[in-house]
Order: sequence, then C-alpha cells, then structure tokens
Amino acid sequence: MSIDEIAPPPRLLMGPGPISVDPRVLRAMAAPLVGQFDPFMTTTMNETMALYREVFATGNEQTFLVDGTARAGIEAALVSLVEPGDRVLVPVFGRFGHLLAEIAGRCGAEVHTIEVPWGRVFAPEQVAAAIEEVRPKVLACVQGDTSTTMCQPLAEIGALCREHDVLLYCDATASLGGNEFRADSWRLDIATAGLQKCLGGPSGSAPITLSPRAVEIVNGRRHVEAGIREASDEARGRVIGSNYLDLAMLMDYWGPRRLNHHTEATSMLYAARECARLLAAEGIDAAVERHALHGRAMLEGVQGLGLGVFGDLAHKMNNVVAVEIPEALGAAGGDAVRGRMLDDFGIEIGTSFGPLHGKVWRIGTMGFNARKDAVLTTLAALEQVLRSSGVAVPAGGGVEAALAVYR
Amino acid sequence: MSIDEIAPPPRLLMGPGPISVDPRVLRAMAAPLVGQFDPFMTTTMNETMALYREVFATGNEQTFLVDGTARAGIEAALVSLVEPGDRVLVPVFGRFGHLLAEIAGRCGAEVHTIEVPWGRVFAPEQVAAAIEEVRPKVLACVQGDTSTTMCQPLAEIGALCREHDVLLYCDATASLGGNEFRADSWRLDIATAGLQKCLGGPSGSAPITLSPRAVEIVNGRRHVEAGIREASDEARGRVIGSNYLDLAMLMDYWGPRRLNHHTEATSMLYAARECARLLAAEGIDAAVERHALHGRAMLEGVQGLGLGVFGDLAHKMNNVVAVEIPEALGAAGGDAVRGRMLDDFGIEIGTSFGPLHGKVWRIGTMGFNARKDAVLTTLAALEQVLRSSGVAVPAGGGVEAALAVYR
Repeated sequence: MSIDEIAPPPRLLMGPGPISVDPRVLRAMAAPLVGQFDPFMTTTMNETMALYREVFATGNEQTFLVDGTARAGIEAALVSLVEPGDRVLVPVFGRFGHLLAEIAGRCGAEVHTIEVPWGRVFAPEQVAAAIEEVRPKVLACVQGDTSTTMCQPLAEIGALCREHDVLLYCDATASLGGNEFRADSWRLDIATAGLQKCLGGPSGSAPITLSPRAVEIVNGRRHVEAGIREASDEARGRVIGSNYLDLAMLMDYWGPRRLNHHTEATSMLYAARECARLLAAEGIDAAVERHALHGRAMLEGVQGLGLGVFGDLAHKMNNVVAVEIPEALGAAGGDAVRGRMLDDFGIEIGTSFGPLHGKVWRIGTMGFNARKDAVLTTLAALEQVLRSSGVAVPAGGGVEAALAVYR
Repeated sequence: MSIDEIAPPPRLLMGPGPISVDPRVLRAMAAPLVGQFDPFMTTTMNETMALYREVFATGNEQTFLVDGTARAGIEAALVSLVEPGDRVLVPVFGRFGHLLAEIAGRCGAEVHTIEVPWGRVFAPEQVAAAIEEVRPKVLACVQGDTSTTMCQPLAEIGALCREHDVLLYCDATASLGGNEFRADSWRLDIATAGLQKCLGGPSGSAPITLSPRAVEIVNGRRHVEAGIREASDEARGRVIGSNYLDLAMLMDYWGPRRLNHHTEATSMLYAARECARLLAAEGIDAAVERHALHGRAMLEGVQGLGLGVFGDLAHKMNNVVAVEIPEALGAAGGDAVRGRMLDDFGIEIGTSFGPLHGKVWRIGTMGFNARKDAVLTTLAALEQVLRSSGVAVPAGGGVEAALAVYR
C-alpha cells in the first residue's frame, strides 16, 4: 500500500465547527513530548488549569481536561454525577439537548425532557415549572446549540437550580469563548467544552470545570483503582459506571497526588493550553466582543444578499447563523451550493440536522475564523455561487452590508 | 496571568512510554484541518483504516480509531461486548491485567481473575482450566504488560477461546508494532492499542480492530441516537452503557453511512495515520525486528554494567526491560538515579508499580527511540550516574556489550 504523507487541501472552515485551527495552536502540537510526571509536564498541567479558570470565569480548583472530544466531557460529567435511577431534567431546544438526554439515559438516569420549538430558547418560568414537577437531581442544559444557533440564557436557571438544590450541568461546547459565559456567577456545577469551536483548536480535548458542590458529589463515589490503592483510599458510594471518564479519578490525576490514570494526551494538552493562552492574552471579554462583531457582520451580510435567517435573533449565538436556503434552488440546491463553495472556493459552510435539514445552511464565524477577511471572502464567494445557481442576489450586497458593520 | 508559548525541555524518553514522538508524526499533527465530512477527511479515515489493518495483521473491515487514550480503547471494547452480569475472565500477570478487571467490573461484569507471579506469563493449560471452570463470555488479556515487561503468547489462548466459543479481547497498547502481533491468525475478536509506545506517536488515539464475530455481537446492541435515527434503525439488544465509547455507533461513523457521532479528533487522526504509515513503509516485520535488536542491545548493555534484570527473559517484551536497582543505592537511591538521569542528561527512565515499586527501573526502547544512538547514550549516561552514586560499574561495560550486539 502506498500512502503519502498527509497533505490536506486548503480550506476555510466556515461551518458550525470544527473550524480552521489557529496556526499557533497547530505549532504548539508539534512541540516534543516530555514524560508523564516530568516537572515540566505537571507545571504545564497546572498552567492549563489556571488558564481554563479564566476561560470559564471561575475560581473552581477542579478545572482541567478530559482526554477525548467534547462528547467525552459531557459523558464524564453525567456519568460521574448521575447514579442509576436519578432523575435528570433536560430542557431541549435543539439536537444537542437530545444528546444530553441520550447520554443521561445511558448512565441509567430517569430522563425528563421539556422542549421548545427549534429556533427558540426557554423562559425561566418554563424551567422553574419543570423543576418543581420533576424534582430532578441534575438539570442538564446546552448553552449554545449549533443545530438551531440559539444561545440559552443561564443566569436565571442557575439561580433556580441552587434554590431547588438541583445540580446544574452545562454543555458549553459550541459557545465558550465566543459568547458570555460565567461559571461562578451563574452558579453552574459542571461545565464542559471542546476546542473545535470558539477556542480555535482541533477536536480531541474537553475542558471541564466542577464547583466545590459537584466535587463533593463526585468524590462521594470515589474508588481508587486496585493496582494503586492505598489503605486510606476507602471506597465509598456507588461506583461510577466508567473508569475512563471517572471524574474522581481524573481529579486525583490532575491534583497534587498525581495518581496514575490514563496517559495524558500530551499533544492535545499543548493544543488546549495554547487555545486558552491566546484567549487569555486577548482577554476573554474582548474575544466575546470579536465574535459578536464578526457574527453581526456575517448576519447582516447574508441579509444583504437578500437571504432569510432562521430563529429568534435576540438569542442567536454570536458565532453561527442559520441561513434559509432560497426556494429557487429546489430540493437538492442547498447541497449543490455547499458543494460549489467547497470545490470552487475551498470554503466550507454547514448543512443541518432534523427539522432544519435541507432548509438552512449554517455559517460559522468562530475561533481563528472570527475575522474580517474570512467573513468578507465567504460572503463574496456565496454571492457568486448563488448568482450562477440562478438566485437573484444584489451585486456586492453581502460584502457591503458586512463592511457597514465594520465601519 | 502571563504564560508563554509552550517550550518543552529536550528529553530522550527511555521509560516504558510515552516515548519521544517521531518528528514526522509531530509534523503531521501541524497539518491544517478539513471539515468533518470533507471528501479529504473521509479518504483519510479510510486510509487510516487500511493502514491499521496492516499493523494489526488483519483483514477485519472494522479497524478504526477510538478518540481517546489507550484506556478509552479498552473501555470501548469491554463496554460494547459486556452486558451486566456477563462473566469475564482476566488472566492477570501485571498491573494492566488488574486494569482490565477493573474496567470489566465497571461494565457490570462478573469478573474472574487468575494470576501468575509478576515476571511470568501463563501456560495455555492454566488458561484452559480457568475457561472450563468459569465459562466466560469474554476473556480479556493484555499482550505486553509494561509493569512486569512480560509478553503473553496469545496463539494458543486464541485457539482455546474459539474452541470454547469465548470472545477474546486483547490489550496490545504496549506491544503492538514492537512485538509479533497477528489479530487474524491468533483469532482475536477485539484488539486495541495506543500510539505512545512502539507506534511512535503521542497518547490520545486508540486504534482498534473487531473480528466479524465481535461486530455481530456489538451490532446486536445497536441503538442509533434519537436525533439522527431513521425508520429502518430498529433498536435491538441491551443498550451499550456508554454513548461516547459505543462501538456500534463508532462503526456507523467510520462506515459508509458516516452517521454523525463525535467530531473526529482530526489532529490525532493525522498522527495515528502517520504512525501507521511509517510503520507500513518500514514493514511491520522489520519494525518488530528493529525493536528486538535494540531491546537486546539494551538488555545486554545493562547486564554489561553488572545490573540484574527482572522476569522470565524468554517472555520479555522486545521494547522494555526491568533493571534491578542495586542494593548499594539504598531505599531512595533508585529515584535519585532517575532524577540525575533526567536533570543532568535529559534522559527519562521509568519507575515501577506495585510489588516492583522501588525494586526496578523500567527502560524502554520503542517507537522512534528504538535506535542505536538512543540505546548507547542511555547506557553511557547510566554508567556515569551509577558510578558517581557509589555503585561499582565496569567502565564502558554497558556500551561495549550493546555494541557487541550491533556488530
């Protein structure tokens, strides 16, 4: 078999993520390894914990990485919190709410969901009523669901959960770094993310933060592995249903005891550290502002091309917009436009799931690609492809509208 | 907080893994991303599947990557095969056998173990007797356990398992690529590995292969996620206890349907592909020979320094040796020597676990570091550190013995 070294075609990734990785993050991954308990390694782990405390806006000591994609972070949170039979309430406003429900179900939870139509978010009263009815142990909620582009406000939900002694887990995969996020002041108990959206990195590492209250619950189920257990390591509570995603073990590994668990994915650690380092250097608030600016430019740009936009714009995530596929394009036209964007211009825009499948494209402006040139290039290319596909679009309407935002 | 870009100190990693990554693999990780369903991405995934079929010596269609460290691969295999209450038999000959038992237990298995003293492997009759007594659904066995440096022969165990209709899972994390491995002719049902040992990559991706028999068992528990399920996707069997590590879903994602699951960790995919590509270009048998050669040179080298070696040398893994810490060094002397190797020479050698803790160093020769200069440099440095620590060592005894192997 003759296979050459990897040589990806140049792509401008303007879908809902993964997006083009910041070249500085790519370079960080090319740094050589050190041993698993090398002083440089443990220092790097500690620095990464400190950096993600800034990103999550938290003082939580237990802020670290799960070695897997964003989904591994979600499952680590839920499998470590939820015991079989526990009630979990999931407000579902898009595909990733269904995912939280699915994962909670696999953990043996009695799952209750409430739903709003795609394109909307929940009002606090709706969540309050469901909490009072279900009396869940855990409420699991997505912040930004790219399937609908909606961003769920969390401050009131956090207060409600605390008031009712409910643990609040938040999946911030698609929103963190590009939308306001306050783990502590919103009183979140666990939040998880991934690198491949607003953090500007590749998929494969899941930052996580746990409140002291969550730490207590998780450590109430702490079982140190037979091979490395000491006399003082008394087992307690019901064993967590996963070894790999057992947050009690991960805390022992990232903590001062450095109890051996998995072999840390060092190159992904370097990537995660660099993502957070760049964000901290820019300033988290400035990064959110940048996402808001370029997201607005993209929104007004597609509207300037005469295209409709899906969903409640008052609650749109900064970093993605759902653009209605013009009816003139016909049933297969949406995919044909995406194909030409990719083949002719090297630009990827996203398809969609479920009720929006075939109805909208999802266009992202996030991480390294939350930039003026990326926005304008995408709009210019989209104008060309739409026109030659038979859609009447105003010449320069997209780019001009975006430029007006920048001016 | 002021944190600089990552700048690891130069290290020659000669422990039991992780080891220094091949620079070509580091470069592959710095390649830019493409979208998750870009034609280049799916081609790259298919190439990676083909390359790992060579590495595992298998024709198994279902040969792909689990997005996590080696331990994620182990758990994916066990959680997908084992239903709560199933009997699992684990022959334990070191720490990682205990890990398999621990993970199987978390999956709800009724776990049975048999043990041999550390430093030995099992004879087929011992395994046969246990299979007849326990009648397990799954036999889970490590191939090479770095904690003892032993390499368990698997051909007879594979035949026994087939004869008794037992599913055979093998953890080849530490052995694959550096020791003979034949998934098909040994009749393994699932085998998993990691990149950070003989494959010469960083931790964070777990290659896996499933026999058609294993595929049938796993797909007997296939449940497509609510958000993307179609009418024909009937749920069947007992749901797998993890979403992230559900091999039925992962096969749908890597297969022609490309059903959305996690967002593939693209940079780690590039790394895994490059590890296997380099190995395939060298020839798997040649790579195993290389590990045998440099492993023998390291073994004879430490013996040439007058040091004892732990375990049954007839069954030693090619890629690691357990070197007895001279009694003259006293209780803390072993760690002091390791510290000076690291601080003065930038060379890491390994400590050990359990009954061997404080008794042996583990020195690896694997992946990119299965090289003459790495072996000789390590032996030269070890001689210097031992002498200045008060151990009588013959001048040049290590390097000369190793050179004799190379001549």
